[in-house]
Amino acid sequence: MNSKEYFKNRRTIRKYDQERSVDTNLIDNMLADAARAANTGNMQTYSVIVSTAPEEIAALAPSHFNQPAITGAKAVLTFCLDFNRFNRWCRLNGTEPGLDNLQGFTWAVIDTSLFAQQFCTIAEMNGLGTCYLGTTTYNAEPIARTLGLPAEVVPVVTVTVGYPAEEPELQERLPLEAIVHHGHYANPSDEAIREFYAEKENLPSSKKFVEENSKENLAQVFAEVRYPRPANEQFSRIYKEFLKNQGIAL
Amino acid sequence: MNSKEYFKNRRTIRKYDQERSVDTNLIDNMLADAARAANTGNMQTYSVIVSTAPEEIAALAPSHFNQPAITGAKAVLTFCLDFNRFNRWCRLNGTEPGLDNLQGFTWAVIDTSLFAQQFCTIAEMNGLGTCYLGTTTYNAEPIARTLGLPAEVVPVVTVTVGYPAEEPELQERLPLEAIVHHGHYANPSDEAIREFYAEKENLPSSKKFVEENSKENLAQVFAEVRYPRPANEQFSRIYKEFLKNQGIAL
Repeated sequence: MNSKEYFKNRRTIRKYDQERSVDTNLIDNMLADAARAANTGNMQTYSVIVSTAPEEIAALAPSHFNQPAITGAKAVLTFCLDFNRFNRWCRLNGTEPGLDNLQGFTWAVIDTSLFAQQFCTIAEMNGLGTCYLGTTTYNAEPIARTLGLPAEVVPVVTVTVGYPAEEPELQERLPLEAIVHHGHYANPSDEAIREFYAEKENLPSSKKFVEENSKENLAQVFAEVRYPRPANEQFSRIYKEFLKNQGIAL
Repeated sequence: MNSKEYFKNRRTIRKYDQERSVDTNLIDNMLADAARAANTGNMQTYSVIVSTAPEEIAALAPSHFNQPAITGAKAVLTFCLDFNRFNRWCRLNGTEPGLDNLQGFTWAVIDTSLFAQQFCTIAEMNGLGTCYLGTTTYNAEPIARTLGLPAEVVPVVTVTVGYPAEEPELQERLPLEAIVHHGHYANPSDEAIREFYAEKENLPSSKKFVEENSKENLAQVFAEVRYPRPANEQFSRIYKEFLKNQGIAL
């Protein structure tokens, strides 16, 4: 598949070939290339912990609610924001850094994400399948404990990796006019909003979600079942507290 | 250049061919492909504002301190986290979303970053040059005003685009062992930290930085001149206040 076809057709892979491991040297080489992605001030305030041994992956799985994407993964990459290395370098040089705030956090989350995304693209163009686990910001503290993260290091995104053992359908996306604005933000009418989400609402899988959860519509499934306010707020408190314990005050 | 060579050699381009504009349709097509990048729950809580008219770019430039990368850009893409569209869809469907907290913010910053990074990779593989502007989180409020962003939409990263008019040196990166850990986080010794940063410290450009700023070493330039604590803390307060005004409480 050439790169044009790849970008048009990329999809998340959650099921991996159990007979085929992923070479650690290959992962390291891909990470070296991924680190060429842009980052704030070239400070590289990120680290990645690569877990390939079955017992290492098994130790991480409960923090990700034992999703099949992790229990069947051949490699798990936990991308972390990392001020520890940079801050220690500053202190060794007689100066005190100041990244432990919302600006530092936001830059580091962005930079960690760019690095992770570049890795995924490289891995997928090498025939591997990847899946991001959103559970990382829910359970940052147990993940940090499992991986032995010191202060000033915080998990941001987790990527599971393996050779694909499934060929999922291309997932739908909102129409381009929903997400791209020219010159200034064009706030859509209510009618336009309804049209943007019509395809998603009409998917058989969406209709099934609505029925299984005894809801009236798909928006209710998102707002009340998948991402309900009380859970989001609870996990926000936990993440904020963990950040504070790691030395970052938002 | 094949994709392998591209990833190994990618570099930020800050100077663009002034005779060559960037076709808006090409940008839209690349954004459509970039939106195939992974995102949390397929909620796509992001938008991008594409500015190509010289007066649109000139209006944004002061918010980015008139850096040459923006004053000479042929297109400027402001990638924003966008809860407005999703929240309005929820409300039209009789339900109340709950993304206006640290979890929602972090997911949306990650997803916006993955989308932006995928765009940059596609653009660069199409022969364009790109540059991220870190000033976006400093001046989110004036940027939002210029672009007409409604509540629940916040600028996260800005990417300037054009055909390259420079061939910069490949920028140095930390050695791979500084950023990649296997199985668990290996906290480096002080000696290892010093070694990680030795190449960066010994670059002629770094030595020049130190001299020009009358500092003793490069770490002091980073911590006291480029990213000093008082500025980081001031911009953190401003960004947090702007987030709150836009309806997101961290």
